[in-house]
Amino acid sequence: MDTFFAPTSLAVYGLSPKARNTPRTIVANCLRWGYRGRILGINPAIDETDVDGIRVYRSAADLPLVPDLAVLLIPARFVLEAVADCGRAGIKRLAIQTGGFNEASGAGRELAVQLLALARSYGMRFVGPNCLTMADTVSGLCLPFVPSFPVRQGSFSLITQSGGTGIFLWNLLETEQVGLAKFASIGNKLDLDECDVLEYLGTDPATKVIGLYLESIDNGRRLVELAERIDKPVLLFKANTTQAGNRAAMSHTAALSADDAILDTALERAGILRIDRLRDFVTTAKAFDLPPMRGNRIMLMSPAGGLGVIMADVSERQGFACADPGPAVFEDLAEMTRADIIQVQNPLDMGDIYRVDKYPQIFSRLLASDQVDAAIFASQRPLMPAGGEDAYTGMFSCDPTLAVAGAVRSSGKPMALVMYGDARTVAAMKEQSPVPVFDGVGEAIGALHRQMRYHARKAAGPFRFDPSAAGFAAGQIEDWLRDRSGVVGEEALELLACCGLAGPASGMARTAEDAAELAARIGPPVVLKVASPEAVHKTEVGGVLIDIDSPAEAARGFDRIRANLERHCPGARFDGVRVAAMAPAGHDLFIGGLQDPAFGPVVLFGHGGIFVEVFQDVQRILAPSSLAEITRKIERLRSAPLFAGVRGRPPVDPAPFVRAVLAVAQLLAEFPQIAELDVNPFRLLDQGGALALDARLRIDVGQKE
Amino acid sequence: MDTFFAPTSLAVYGLSPKARNTPRTIVANCLRWGYRGRILGINPAIDETDVDGIRVYRSAADLPLVPDLAVLLIPARFVLEAVADCGRAGIKRLAIQTGGFNEASGAGRELAVQLLALARSYGMRFVGPNCLTMADTVSGLCLPFVPSFPVRQGSFSLITQSGGTGIFLWNLLETEQVGLAKFASIGNKLDLDECDVLEYLGTDPATKVIGLYLESIDNGRRLVELAERIDKPVLLFKANTTQAGNRAAMSHTAALSADDAILDTALERAGILRIDRLRDFVTTAKAFDLPPMRGNRIMLMSPAGGLGVIMADVSERQGFACADPGPAVFEDLAEMTRADIIQVQNPLDMGDIYRVDKYPQIFSRLLASDQVDAAIFASQRPLMPAGGEDAYTGMFSCDPTLAVAGAVRSSGKPMALVMYGDARTVAAMKEQSPVPVFDGVGEAIGALHRQMRYHARKAAGPFRFDPSAAGFAAGQIEDWLRDRSGVVGEEALELLACCGLAGPASGMARTAEDAAELAARIGPPVVLKVASPEAVHKTEVGGVLIDIDSPAEAARGFDRIRANLERHCPGARFDGVRVAAMAPAGHDLFIGGLQDPAFGPVVLFGHGGIFVEVFQDVQRILAPSSLAEITRKIERLRSAPLFAGVRGRPPVDPAPFVRAVLAVAQLLAEFPQIAELDVNPFRLLDQGGALALDARLRIDVGQKE
Repeated sequence: MDTFFAPTSLAVYGLSPKARNTPRTIVANCLRWGYRGRILGINPAIDETDVDGIRVYRSAADLPLVPDLAVLLIPARFVLEAVADCGRAGIKRLAIQTGGFNEASGAGRELAVQLLALARSYGMRFVGPNCLTMADTVSGLCLPFVPSFPVRQGSFSLITQSGGTGIFLWNLLETEQVGLAKFASIGNKLDLDECDVLEYLGTDPATKVIGLYLESIDNGRRLVELAERIDKPVLLFKANTTQAGNRAAMSHTAALSADDAILDTALERAGILRIDRLRDFVTTAKAFDLPPMRGNRIMLMSPAGGLGVIMADVSERQGFACADPGPAVFEDLAEMTRADIIQVQNPLDMGDIYRVDKYPQIFSRLLASDQVDAAIFASQRPLMPAGGEDAYTGMFSCDPTLAVAGAVRSSGKPMALVMYGDARTVAAMKEQSPVPVFDGVGEAIGALHRQMRYHARKAAGPFRFDPSAAGFAAGQIEDWLRDRSGVVGEEALELLACCGLAGPASGMARTAEDAAELAARIGPPVVLKVASPEAVHKTEVGGVLIDIDSPAEAARGFDRIRANLERHCPGARFDGVRVAAMAPAGHDLFIGGLQDPAFGPVVLFGHGGIFVEVFQDVQRILAPSSLAEITRKIERLRSAPLFAGVRGRPPVDPAPFVRAVLAVAQLLAEFPQIAELDVNPFRLLDQGGALALDARLRIDVGQKE
Repeated sequence: MDTFFAPTSLAVYGLSPKARNTPRTIVANCLRWGYRGRILGINPAIDETDVDGIRVYRSAADLPLVPDLAVLLIPARFVLEAVADCGRAGIKRLAIQTGGFNEASGAGRELAVQLLALARSYGMRFVGPNCLTMADTVSGLCLPFVPSFPVRQGSFSLITQSGGTGIFLWNLLETEQVGLAKFASIGNKLDLDECDVLEYLGTDPATKVIGLYLESIDNGRRLVELAERIDKPVLLFKANTTQAGNRAAMSHTAALSADDAILDTALERAGILRIDRLRDFVTTAKAFDLPPMRGNRIMLMSPAGGLGVIMADVSERQGFACADPGPAVFEDLAEMTRADIIQVQNPLDMGDIYRVDKYPQIFSRLLASDQVDAAIFASQRPLMPAGGEDAYTGMFSCDPTLAVAGAVRSSGKPMALVMYGDARTVAAMKEQSPVPVFDGVGEAIGALHRQMRYHARKAAGPFRFDPSAAGFAAGQIEDWLRDRSGVVGEEALELLACCGLAGPASGMARTAEDAAELAARIGPPVVLKVASPEAVHKTEVGGVLIDIDSPAEAARGFDRIRANLERHCPGARFDGVRVAAMAPAGHDLFIGGLQDPAFGPVVLFGHGGIFVEVFQDVQRILAPSSLAEITRKIERLRSAPLFAGVRGRPPVDPAPFVRAVLAVAQLLAEFPQIAELDVNPFRLLDQGGALALDARLRIDVGQKE
């Protein structure tokens, strides 16, 4: 991957002296950026031997050396030929910028298949097509074909699926003084994808924060595992989360939208910070340029009292607590500033503290308090008549950047400087400031919160799944699954029993006599349920009878069910009647599972019935999982208070439910041929314990590992 | 109120030649802004007769005329004396900027009471204290004591409770080229408040859009009524919505936080547009500078494909539909641009349309389609090497403002221009552009959406409440309420019956014989419930017996309930036993009502039990209301699907519930002495019809009109 960012030599395909020739822009960019490797041109269609001072050859075979990397920005119809030319010459890495492949028409998709096959046949790896490929502020490589000045060197690296959005962000990094380390526009990611680049950036010394702009995620599970391992903050903006977005993205970079809730589940596991405004790549990078925020107590300061109120609102909504540095600190401040009109408190209204020369002391004193984890100072630089001796001229023209920097360096805690006002004045302040300058209190608070969450997550250590669920019998499960496929109904309870999920005592009656005998053995009352592949909804075919009180009644019920089935589904196969114990009263929940194409096994759970159907009150985990993770998520259910008992229902301990979810997660993780699974209802009994009362699953033998 | 914004003469209290004298800044601001009225100074404490060319008098009595307005920015302890001085001289309007009143200490609160009384005794009206008071770009009055250049004249007027936030917004209006009409910083609003200023701005010809920044709302009902009447968009930012914010605001402008959900209900009724970022004052004002958006179909365009995807996501989440101009229009575009790489669709990826000279035609053709209600074009102005002939130099350095303006003026539809990139370049473009330039796609889409909502709301006409609920008998209600006070239990069902809400047939038994007779008359099964002021929770004292099947059982039940009460609450008053018909099965809902201190009568409703207790699934209306409004809000309940029947429950018609909510709203509106009311459960019967099964209310006779 090093070769893509810092090749020692570069071949530019299609270079020509025409005024609007885009490969010329690539060459110009590399020259402007100070790229130190050798640059060579290839163009079979021109007679000139050099363009802009770069020597041009007719074929890769003619080059004086085998370049590390070739960049292709030529019409799609010439790409295969050029790739073959490079392959024959032994070039192993390609940056393919050309559009018109799988993001476009059916012919483009065909071309993409051929491109991939051709590259593989030569053992070549490539980035693209349909993108801007790489730039690197350290090596000076700048392949994007948009004319560009050198971007300020920084520690933020970007992986983007959209070239245009990438360029937009790179401008933003520049104007916001954050700077760029490495840039990778990966487009259709036909060969190398975001995971390949992410893995590389994870160990790149120039990169401290990684941003991902993605319109599709194909290898979600790998992304999660990589991000978990990488010891750097990873930010993700996921576009294409709605139907409209999806329509746009399909043509843009051939993206397919995944389930957004599953994505959130995965990102939480991975510790990836999701953002929903592009600007937050930059604001969050700024927050990571400050020391870690180790607790949630924040000190808020502004000369505009209203901004203090707003900051307090936003902070509380984010989950921050207003820090209380204590009376001693506040007395110091009052003394320092000799202000007595505004009360000294948090948020601190600095509107009547005219002594701007005291700002360094105030900031430093507050951040030094062990009751304060972070601070924000929000002020403004309005356009004002200059040189007045009044208080506001001092207050609104002073430069607080050094005072903030001093407090930050001295305390080792983060302090965000927010500056409103005239665009040019603020831009100039950003250029000079030794600490990041934020544009608004909302973005500063949001960015600090992401920073705090990241550090808390890192401090907690990597995610550890609980390796085995209680009563999980892998051998029995394997036996049960063997030779089964397609949809399985209530019989699935047998499989769940192998996972440690008990069902009600039951047996299968083939005859009315069987039914009576089973009813006697199990003990009334019992339930009778038809067993028939045609009876998908048993109730609707009169296939369920409850509260059967005696063996004789069970025998009669058997005949009645058989008659009902015949009446409702003439000719349906009748496999018998399941006789099961009536479950005691309890608390009905559900557990569902599926194999997500991007993120693999996922388990969903919550309260059953209207809670899931009407309120969509569902939590999700990636499988495998841990008891702690499942417990935490159960507490997040809006219906969680039901466990404590409401409206006369007794309280119920969710522990058996937690264990059952863990077992289902292990089942889906170890047996990928289980494509879908539903345990519904799963009943926590008022008398203690739990029963899986019904289940369905779908086995897809093609997915068996 | 005209006097506050455009006085023909102004007296500035406390003017002195000291360098840091803040009244001097007020004078300087008025001079800089070109205020044409006469300016006089008052200062009893100095010997000089003029300051900065303004003649200073010892007392208001010495002035050569009675000025329209006096502005006071002197220490709080001198304020009362100065006000009396003004009063004696016949000055009728004051702008009091001084802090240290009810926002500060107990002594400050006392001072505030005296100030109000003193002003009233002279028939004076004032704005303040603790604020910046007025500025007016037309009259040139600029009282805020922050040194200030003239602000660009515009059509946005601001009412703010925080001076600092006001100054911040005024700078923002200036740098964003929106401009200001009138500015009113009202601080503690001890006399005149936001409603007084709003009413005035409603008819002010210079004002087209009104912004409110408030930390407290005291006369919410008046605010709602004013905003409904005013034919201009009103935007509100409500700070102080959390506990932390409240603590800050208490000291800042003595604000008290109201229930945020009630606020939202009131704003919806009023048609006030709520914003939650300060910047959106400016972005929304920009949207109102464009023609009205009359439908929800939006056309999205960008040379960065990723921005198209993002815009589509954000638009769909906001409730916009992607416009489909149809194949004829798209064919025209393809012809016009001769681009064939990117598909012509919406969002339109303009990244391969290199013909920037075609932008006017493209924009105009799209907006002319009757399938398009609005459009957005999002592009960027990066820092780029100048003068290249490549495609991107043209694309990213062209000025699209005229093309956008042409399409807007020609179509009479809104088109938002979003420009990212170098801060200085974008600032310069904003200064020159004849149409608003937005900073981001999110803010542009949000602002257009608010504009569209405003126009739709205006097109629907003013809110009309349904004047009378069916069966509402005001005379009977008045009789029933007469001589009652405090908390009333189940007896409240009698009151509801007067409002047209039927309860189960019932009667009060004083003896066991009564109970038997009533049971026979009503017809078993019946319910027995204790009547005792001490039995707040009837079930807990064994005071409820259900399923009483015969008169004899009713008589026995009477004795048992009496004994239970005596056992659980020895000495409790026993008023008898209510015998009521058992209600048939149905669908349980609740209706609650209260008198909000700011917004008056409010009714809450939803499904009962866990739906309200666990899911807080509640809707609210201001009373009185209309059947249409209540129906619309019922449809917003997350539990609304329950009416359609789920999981085997029969569907149920909510109409009787709608009528009951309307009746309760009328009750609370006409009888303000009803401080709180709960109807729970209100049952929609499976067999049709409805019954109020239990109720409680609290009568506060002090509130009787």
